Amino acid sequence: MSTDFRFAVNVLPKAGILDPQGRAVEGSLGHLGIAGVSAVRVGRRVELTVTAEDEAAARATVERLAAELLANPLIEAHAIEALPR
Amino acid sequence: MSTDFRFAVNVLPKAGILDPQGRAVEGSLGHLGIAGVSAVRVGRRVELTVTAEDEAAARATVERLAAELLANPLIEAHAIEALPR
Repeated sequence: MSTDFRFAVNVLPKAGILDPQGRAVEGSLGHLGIAGVSAVRVGRRVELTVTAEDEAAARATVERLAAELLANPLIEAHAIEALPR
Repeated sequence: MSTDFRFAVNVLPKAGILDPQGRAVEGSLGHLGIAGVSAVRVGRRVELTVTAEDEAAARATVERLAAELLANPLIEAHAIEALPR
């Protein structure tokens, strides 16, 4: 019997990789009058449902999807998070 | 004395809002030979450091930043997550 599992994949630029979106956010803080914010990094979050026999099989599918489609392993790191169903 | 707090802001399209990036991921699954994946939603994840007196003040800054700069409240929902320092 198959079950639905819900996951999130967080994709962020690796340390040392230029992050122009993060710099753009930092550049906007002054206009908003917000102080004390630093080290902004902007990435992607993908949430998805996997239908599989068990959680291990579902996680293997998400891992493949993250490595082959959602993240560019040269410049991005990804982390997988199990979400409540 | 000020302390550094680390947060993530997850921004995702609201339910019912068209998500073309999610549809693009779903359309690529067949080419990769990945089955059983559905309900893909693509959003952003922003990680940042806030220097503040206490966690409540830091969280208030993140909430303002999320609502005024990182998310479009008409079409996107955001959630704030405290990260380990």
